[in-house]
Amino acid sequence: MKYKVIFFDFDDTLGDRQTYSYQTFAELIDTYCPIDDLIQREAVLQDCMLWDMRGNYNKQFIVENLKKRYGIELPIKNFLIWWSDRQSKLALPKENVYHVLEELRQEGYRLCILTNGYEKYQKRKTKNIHVDTLVDKVITSQMVGVKKPDPRIFQEALSQMKARASEAVYVGDTFSNDIYGAYRTGIQPIWIRSLSWPGTAPVPRIEDLSELPAVIHGLEQGTIKKNV
Amino acid sequence: MKYKVIFFDFDDTLGDRQTYSYQTFAELIDTYCPIDDLIQREAVLQDCMLWDMRGNYNKQFIVENLKKRYGIELPIKNFLIWWSDRQSKLALPKENVYHVLEELRQEGYRLCILTNGYEKYQKRKTKNIHVDTLVDKVITSQMVGVKKPDPRIFQEALSQMKARASEAVYVGDTFSNDIYGAYRTGIQPIWIRSLSWPGTAPVPRIEDLSELPAVIHGLEQGTIKKNV
Repeated sequence: MKYKVIFFDFDDTLGDRQTYSYQTFAELIDTYCPIDDLIQREAVLQDCMLWDMRGNYNKQFIVENLKKRYGIELPIKNFLIWWSDRQSKLALPKENVYHVLEELRQEGYRLCILTNGYEKYQKRKTKNIHVDTLVDKVITSQMVGVKKPDPRIFQEALSQMKARASEAVYVGDTFSNDIYGAYRTGIQPIWIRSLSWPGTAPVPRIEDLSELPAVIHGLEQGTIKKNV
Repeated sequence: MKYKVIFFDFDDTLGDRQTYSYQTFAELIDTYCPIDDLIQREAVLQDCMLWDMRGNYNKQFIVENLKKRYGIELPIKNFLIWWSDRQSKLALPKENVYHVLEELRQEGYRLCILTNGYEKYQKRKTKNIHVDTLVDKVITSQMVGVKKPDPRIFQEALSQMKARASEAVYVGDTFSNDIYGAYRTGIQPIWIRSLSWPGTAPVPRIEDLSELPAVIHGLEQGTIKKNV
């Protein structure tokens, strides 16, 4: 059976979040508490990246730790809005994004980005890296009212793309939100990972988007084992 | 000038912490709240790895998040002790550790591991991966009474190794504790990194320990710029 719809997470799946998050932290520090010593500055930035947990935690955690560890008090009222706004302006694509999206589209798949975050800022990211015109739809958690991994956001996305769960795959990097969320909804997950730690679950995985078409075909042809 | 002493961080510098931490989380979950569904189990393990922040945060954070996100209540009184004990038993070396330590020793450098953590468990790690006999000394923060990046632990280590700051280099992965800590004490840092995010500070960096001897020689010969 051929799939009809391919869903994508955005940050760290299509977008090179590690890079534009680092640049956002650099802008934050350089604007609100410039540090002349480049090694001291890097210590703060690298700690911010650790506390960021690849975007999978409340942003307030970073604000609190900057204060606790470095005595840095940020004069920003809503850090999540500041962060979303600045980060969305600095968005960059991961390697091979354009080539792979075009290839999949030419093969007849409908493409949809399904991302947690604010409508305005997540859509700006897709526009800034020019993938907005390469996909059929961008659906955000703000629009739906619930976030991944809540099955309702996956069900709403299926409904908007006019597909059944068995006709879709979901490509994402965060195991709990993307992979387990899709799996619980009956959508076949594909894990894009670039972490240096292990992962042992029997889910199809790729290191780079360029491997995606072959994995999708393998699932369709039965040469790669499905999870749902 | 030739350096006399090379200090090493342990976890994620000589030890493959990413791997033995994952295995420790797996043991934790499989012992205290076994999960039959392998994809659900992986979601919990991958979240634990995110919350772990490569070991650079209070362990209680993981306990709280396991309860908050997954309703998992661990019947463990002191999680830090449980963690240190189990993790130390599963210790594994990073690649090229033996070869590089032996080479540096043959060249006449004195070697010292300077690590945050409990004496008993950190020493057990160095013994389990057989580096205890390849270095001259293992110094832990418990022994000194302060942790990296506090300059006093670096100064105490210099004193025990009978060297001045200018005669030593420090090799570590955590920028704020290892690199900024050594730098503030006047010890030349070398950053071993295996993170997918950027780093822009002008500090000598290596991706793998096998690059270390050449970087040390470059600093000695003036072909690589020193920071201190």
